[in-house]
Amino acid sequence: MAETRATDDVRYAGIDIGGTKIYTLITTADGTVLGSGRKKTKSEKGFEGVMERVGKCLNEACEDADVKAADLRAIGVGAPSPILPDGTAVHAPNMPGWQNVPLVPALAERLGRPVYAENDVNAGTLGEYTLGAGRGARTLVGLFMGTGLGGGIIYRGELVTGENCQAAELGHMILQVDGRRCGCGHRGCLEAYASKSGMGRRFNYEIGMLGRPSRLEELWEEKDYSNVKSSVLQTCWEAEDELVRETLGEACRYLGIGAASLITALGPDRIVLGGGVFEALGTELLPLVESAAAAHTHPPGSFQDTRFVLAELGDDAVALGAMVHAREAAG
Amino acid sequence: MAETRATDDVRYAGIDIGGTKIYTLITTADGTVLGSGRKKTKSEKGFEGVMERVGKCLNEACEDADVKAADLRAIGVGAPSPILPDGTAVHAPNMPGWQNVPLVPALAERLGRPVYAENDVNAGTLGEYTLGAGRGARTLVGLFMGTGLGGGIIYRGELVTGENCQAAELGHMILQVDGRRCGCGHRGCLEAYASKSGMGRRFNYEIGMLGRPSRLEELWEEKDYSNVKSSVLQTCWEAEDELVRETLGEACRYLGIGAASLITALGPDRIVLGGGVFEALGTELLPLVESAAAAHTHPPGSFQDTRFVLAELGDDAVALGAMVHAREAAG
Repeated sequence: MAETRATDDVRYAGIDIGGTKIYTLITTADGTVLGSGRKKTKSEKGFEGVMERVGKCLNEACEDADVKAADLRAIGVGAPSPILPDGTAVHAPNMPGWQNVPLVPALAERLGRPVYAENDVNAGTLGEYTLGAGRGARTLVGLFMGTGLGGGIIYRGELVTGENCQAAELGHMILQVDGRRCGCGHRGCLEAYASKSGMGRRFNYEIGMLGRPSRLEELWEEKDYSNVKSSVLQTCWEAEDELVRETLGEACRYLGIGAASLITALGPDRIVLGGGVFEALGTELLPLVESAAAAHTHPPGSFQDTRFVLAELGDDAVALGAMVHAREAAG
Repeated sequence: MAETRATDDVRYAGIDIGGTKIYTLITTADGTVLGSGRKKTKSEKGFEGVMERVGKCLNEACEDADVKAADLRAIGVGAPSPILPDGTAVHAPNMPGWQNVPLVPALAERLGRPVYAENDVNAGTLGEYTLGAGRGARTLVGLFMGTGLGGGIIYRGELVTGENCQAAELGHMILQVDGRRCGCGHRGCLEAYASKSGMGRRFNYEIGMLGRPSRLEELWEEKDYSNVKSSVLQTCWEAEDELVRETLGEACRYLGIGAASLITALGPDRIVLGGGVFEALGTELLPLVESAAAAHTHPPGSFQDTRFVLAELGDDAVALGAMVHAREAAG
């Protein structure tokens, strides 16, 4: 069947541009990974410097997959910025010089193939929806707890980017009016409680100021706990460290209440929990999130229609989601 | 042009079934009102009793419009309950006996015309979107402050009912974890601050328990302030009553912060503020809501793409929205 073979031959690339590394996957149309590439971002080289690194990373991945870049049907990119319909990256706090930069035009010219870009967390959510823990769902909310708290929404198959192309910043929904200060400058954001940076502020206060004992003191040598590795949190959790258990419990309670508000507003049938903290401690933490959500959803019965699951794609989520985005856009 | 005349001749009914009254409009396809009917609900007569009253109200409206019920293309109904796809009304707290009642089948049989139903606040939001203050918007959030705080969401033309058919209960998003008790039993819901019932609890506390002076004492003869009329709030506001100004200010601040979370999550281009309190004091209160929203939206620039407006349809919103729903469903 020539048609089938023709489809089988189509190749895509998905590129995850992060603050520290660039990660590229070459895939078939159904998302099977044929090869990968990985390069340091070297974001200090500025926008053009990063674009050059993206090109090198794509070549590395193509070589690994034994695919010519010129044969790619389309290239999807996930970047840590809102992306406008014309492919402009509006602002990426971790990327020096990324202020209204022409991300898609620059890459399309450099790579010679059609390029489509999306915000990285949105891409990761789309990846889980299409190829991961969201398969079979109609409406999905993704919540990713790492340094920050990233979020994405798929409403009946469509990625919700908002009329402003900047929506689904779910870590900055406000759950505690006049509450804890968040990195964004506001107070009481979900991220101020349910993220490593938010938990770190509590660790700094409880250990540094109140002298509360915690195994974190031996396991984390820096004086600043605002970005403790997830593996260290895991070790402390498993050692039943009281402060870490309390703080992760609080984070999960807030995350569950945030999820409840999203169920109350949007009625998703699936909520995917991912990010470094859930990769390390997902089976322990998922029930905490779920029970807090169950206790705060309105009307109470509506909670039963939403299933909570752990993300499945790990580090591949953004690149795979970017590939799905490109596949849908390019046809 | 025969085609135009044929469309001009099509007639619809929109029926708003409320806890105290039933209100029916007969309209053309473009929503022009040709006649109306109004009956007490007499909800104590139970589901079948209310269905009979709906039939009488429709007849009254048809007579007023000089239209035969048999000539109606379709009938839309807004009811204070979640509505399942098969037309079941799940539960209506103000309507005795409404537990999983067959609303659409019962009315279709009684009225002999195609019937389509939607939750009343969702219908009101759809009405504003199509025929009122939401005209020209793509994605819209409706927030209606009365006894409770009702909400509705239109995402790119589609009413968001959720996979559970119970979504957009925006008054029960949680803004203050462990905060004020809400009528729903949870704590810290938006409605616990931004509704007449929520404000009433503060009035009861401040006047009844702390003895704080307020003109409410002379203007509202009941000892219980939990459902003060909007016109009385208006009089107190205009007299610069300190307690009423403070409490309405607080309600608007919470409403604005709730709106900010919805902008952060969904990026709507329009937010419509309605309900009795805004009908009475809209021009005074809208700037308070807007400034609280501006101060809490993330990223800050994304706020500029959302326009805040006052609802335009008043008491007609639900019936007109129900008519629009029926028109879209029936074609």
